[in-house]
Amino acid sequence: MPERVTTNDKAALHALLDAVPIGHFGFVEHSSPVVMPNAFVRDNDDILMHGSTGSWWLRKLSDGREVSASVSILEGLVYARSGFESSMQYKSAVLFGRCVPLKGVEKARALDLVVDGLLPKRLSELRPATKKELAATLLLKMRIDEWSFKSSIMWPEDPEEDIASDAWAGFLPIVSRYGDPENSPDLRPGIPLAASVARLRGSKTF
Amino acid sequence: MPERVTTNDKAALHALLDAVPIGHFGFVEHSSPVVMPNAFVRDNDDILMHGSTGSWWLRKLSDGREVSASVSILEGLVYARSGFESSMQYKSAVLFGRCVPLKGVEKARALDLVVDGLLPKRLSELRPATKKELAATLLLKMRIDEWSFKSSIMWPEDPEEDIASDAWAGFLPIVSRYGDPENSPDLRPGIPLAASVARLRGSKTF
Repeated sequence: MPERVTTNDKAALHALLDAVPIGHFGFVEHSSPVVMPNAFVRDNDDILMHGSTGSWWLRKLSDGREVSASVSILEGLVYARSGFESSMQYKSAVLFGRCVPLKGVEKARALDLVVDGLLPKRLSELRPATKKELAATLLLKMRIDEWSFKSSIMWPEDPEEDIASDAWAGFLPIVSRYGDPENSPDLRPGIPLAASVARLRGSKTF
Repeated sequence: MPERVTTNDKAALHALLDAVPIGHFGFVEHSSPVVMPNAFVRDNDDILMHGSTGSWWLRKLSDGREVSASVSILEGLVYARSGFESSMQYKSAVLFGRCVPLKGVEKARALDLVVDGLLPKRLSELRPATKKELAATLLLKMRIDEWSFKSSIMWPEDPEEDIASDAWAGFLPIVSRYGDPENSPDLRPGIPLAASVARLRGSKTF
């Protein structure tokens, strides 16, 4: 198993950003840090996120101030023979950039990407967004100016005297899966489960 | 099902902080925001986190500057009949506070809490930390001065004309579980799986 690595492999960064739907977006307001979670999708080298036009902090980000975002996935626990050598397997990215609010056709296109990214293959099952809905939605594009990516997939690395002890050592993976879909209480009788949902059921999320 | 709520229920905050092992910690460095992921545990009303004494950003936090942290869990996808009404079920907390580095017996106690919090019930299976290990570890306590907690557990809330359409609507849960433990390649023959790991196998993580 490789080590703990920091890499400038953009494909690894993109794979993480495509797999994890929630980012943690930090900015400075009145000299103080604020970090907020939000769903996002990747569009080439950019991040797209949306929210209500009433969201106070998405409106702050709209002014183009600096943003840092953290995206990570915990893949399991590494049990060494000491607390000191124990660790986690994870992938994480830290992004730096600024946001711009999108308008017009760019905004409509981005919203489609957001819907289809967060709810895979759902877009074609839905009616198009209305003008009113578009007007009530804030759509931000974060251009990534700098980023770092870290991946830790180590086995325990205990010193010999600890390996000689009776303590177990190993790895306990964590796996996230989609469960069984539940119908909305207001679903009309006879409407079958959406194909986009049927294909996700039981599969790994990220 | 209740709605999307912001609550000042401290028990709900604590349950989230106890369930989720990774937080995203934001601070200001040279007027710019930086957000970094790190494992943490809750100790009463405080957050404990540890890392190497060589970690540049944990050292920055040691000076008592303001910190904001975001902790969240995604519990599933809410499929409405439009992109606009589609959403997610989640719980999230945003914390504000400052960190102090712990020393001496406080530090040793906190490190035990961190190990046993991140690797549940593991502490009693391990030898105690050595002085050298303690010296190489930075242990920060973040005192939470302000926090907010949000929980969204909605069904779709479509308007009547969308309910009348043929689109499916419902909820797709996401469940994270511990998988099957793997022995470390350097595990000595005859050492059984740790009891702390055996009890986690297959169970929900958060």
